[in-house]
Amino acid sequence: MSTIQYLTQIEFGAGVLRLLPEALQALDVRRPLMIGDRGLLAAGLVDRICATLPAGMKLQRYLDTPANPTEAAVEAAAALYRDGDCDGIVAIGGGSPIDLAKGVALMATHPGPLSRYTGMAAMPLIGAQTAPIVAVPTTAGTGSEVGRGALLCLRDGRKLVVVSPYLLPRRAICDPELTLSLPPALTAGTGMDALTHCVETFLSPRFNPPADAIALDGAARAWRWIERAVAHPGDIQARTEMMIAGIHGGLAFQKGLGAVHALAHPLGALTEPLLHHGTVNAVLLPAVLRFNAAHVGDKFARLAATFGLPAAVDLPAAVSALCDRIGMPPSLRAMGVPADACDAVVAGALADHSLPTNPRPLDASALRTLFHEAMG
Amino acid sequence: MSTIQYLTQIEFGAGVLRLLPEALQALDVRRPLMIGDRGLLAAGLVDRICATLPAGMKLQRYLDTPANPTEAAVEAAAALYRDGDCDGIVAIGGGSPIDLAKGVALMATHPGPLSRYTGMAAMPLIGAQTAPIVAVPTTAGTGSEVGRGALLCLRDGRKLVVVSPYLLPRRAICDPELTLSLPPALTAGTGMDALTHCVETFLSPRFNPPADAIALDGAARAWRWIERAVAHPGDIQARTEMMIAGIHGGLAFQKGLGAVHALAHPLGALTEPLLHHGTVNAVLLPAVLRFNAAHVGDKFARLAATFGLPAAVDLPAAVSALCDRIGMPPSLRAMGVPADACDAVVAGALADHSLPTNPRPLDASALRTLFHEAMG
Repeated sequence: MSTIQYLTQIEFGAGVLRLLPEALQALDVRRPLMIGDRGLLAAGLVDRICATLPAGMKLQRYLDTPANPTEAAVEAAAALYRDGDCDGIVAIGGGSPIDLAKGVALMATHPGPLSRYTGMAAMPLIGAQTAPIVAVPTTAGTGSEVGRGALLCLRDGRKLVVVSPYLLPRRAICDPELTLSLPPALTAGTGMDALTHCVETFLSPRFNPPADAIALDGAARAWRWIERAVAHPGDIQARTEMMIAGIHGGLAFQKGLGAVHALAHPLGALTEPLLHHGTVNAVLLPAVLRFNAAHVGDKFARLAATFGLPAAVDLPAAVSALCDRIGMPPSLRAMGVPADACDAVVAGALADHSLPTNPRPLDASALRTLFHEAMG
Repeated sequence: MSTIQYLTQIEFGAGVLRLLPEALQALDVRRPLMIGDRGLLAAGLVDRICATLPAGMKLQRYLDTPANPTEAAVEAAAALYRDGDCDGIVAIGGGSPIDLAKGVALMATHPGPLSRYTGMAAMPLIGAQTAPIVAVPTTAGTGSEVGRGALLCLRDGRKLVVVSPYLLPRRAICDPELTLSLPPALTAGTGMDALTHCVETFLSPRFNPPADAIALDGAARAWRWIERAVAHPGDIQARTEMMIAGIHGGLAFQKGLGAVHALAHPLGALTEPLLHHGTVNAVLLPAVLRFNAAHVGDKFARLAATFGLPAAVDLPAAVSALCDRIGMPPSLRAMGVPADACDAVVAGALADHSLPTNPRPLDASALRTLFHEAMG
């Protein structure tokens, strides 16, 4: 158990959930809005987390977070925040409730509409009045618990980023025990989200040595432990290592992601089918790695070394094989993505904030080729 | 040139000094107090930095920073801050002016005396009214430009830490060009400070995986580039790598340092001789590494691997040999430390905040042995 402070103050370790009341007290939050989803409720995690709070604490709950959080959900939860005279947010879950919480922290304290605040250029519009968030991740992958950004689906169909230092959770309560009940498919999909964050960040051509160091370490942990976490859900060491990998992705991706995320964001905006972000990343990653291979200097060899693979390994093929072993779907088609989504996905990717930090520049034609390759 | 935001927003790269006016404007600092020292003035760096500021900017200067900053200097500079109606601080130099600036940022905005605020337990007394600091490092080693703490010599003779997130410089302008004129002995001594921060942090038994990742990367850079920077002062690549190593030390040492720093702090409080902190660290490091060797698991082998040395290398001997090659003094005795300083140094080390995070516990007898070993 340790206190770590990089961007967010992180409490880490099996059992740290019990520090939630102290975290709220330190932030002077007395009437929190709890944001989660129905899956967490069904798994008993909402009750388990509520049980740590002081008896009689005035608490609102919003548990209708969609798989990819929407503007409508932000507005509904922000209304609950205002009506309940809330003074802070407890975000529990994977990336969706935590990202939703960031939208709510913003919209409960700033004039609308949400679309005003999207994109990196809008950052100065987001101020210190943003509601404080305590994040309690129940998956290991998103990194949203230590990240400044949220991906939200606007009414007009776009999935866009909202980003500001004020959206950073003030505390992250990272308790690997909360991930023990995560089923294998979600363990694999969220774990591949962590791996993808670390790999794309490391490959991004921007200059950010601490992010590179953290990303390379996180990638190594995810690579070495994801199969164990999937095969042995109750292995607390594997869960701990995967939770570190998720945090490292979130600490590092300020450096910039790449084409996997540029494509995954508009795919996540589809309403039919609803796609799991980390699983989409896993399916896209091999194709994007192949596309970037000649544009990353010696970084594939450095990744291979940290994964314990030979320097000359075919890294995209090794990632594909890992995805097979942990039960990831073989293609976007197998996930139900229709071929006619291509135009919207390519248009979204071209406008995405993650595209400029891909190591190899992409135009619409290159994105189209990647989409078709990932369709299988 | 890149913007990096971990604890502090860092502007990094050759030529980023020109971003200083923007940084002050972003923080709404219009009447800064500049804190530096006579060496910087003589080297022309004070004038060079002032030349980047808008003509007519109201500017106070405090250039009498002692080699190890004192309570008296804090008070003198804080009086200048108040008398000049200053609204922020530009700290230029190595660790001494930057640490002094932290003391001034505190004492210009909080009731005295300084001794109220020393130690980790006093952190809650330091509030958001602390004056904003922009740090412009001119050495590569201290890490104070991205650290929350300052080491200050009190009137009673103790050298103690003052620490708070509010003491973090709001911006660090890290321009390797400013280190090109640093002479070899200071390049070596400050560089060994960076290496020691990274090595002690990595060896500390606390749990902080991102700090470990950053520290290991920083140690590798310092190890690989310090000789080049000492031998070829004008090599901008070596200066850049050393500046990254210094930053990485400062980002990582929140995890906790060890016996080198526990001993170096009271040594830095001696008034006769006045000792250079980084050089003292270099002299102490081999003895402390030998003392810790059996208490660090596989970490010596991991350091050796990242240094490009055989896993079975005698790491303390390799560090000694490096120190010889870059002209570090062979012993504390050679630096003029008198043998009768032992009692005061051991007493200071026993009370030091860095001692509890040394991998092997130390009592007075162990500290005495280390002191004598380092005396040579």
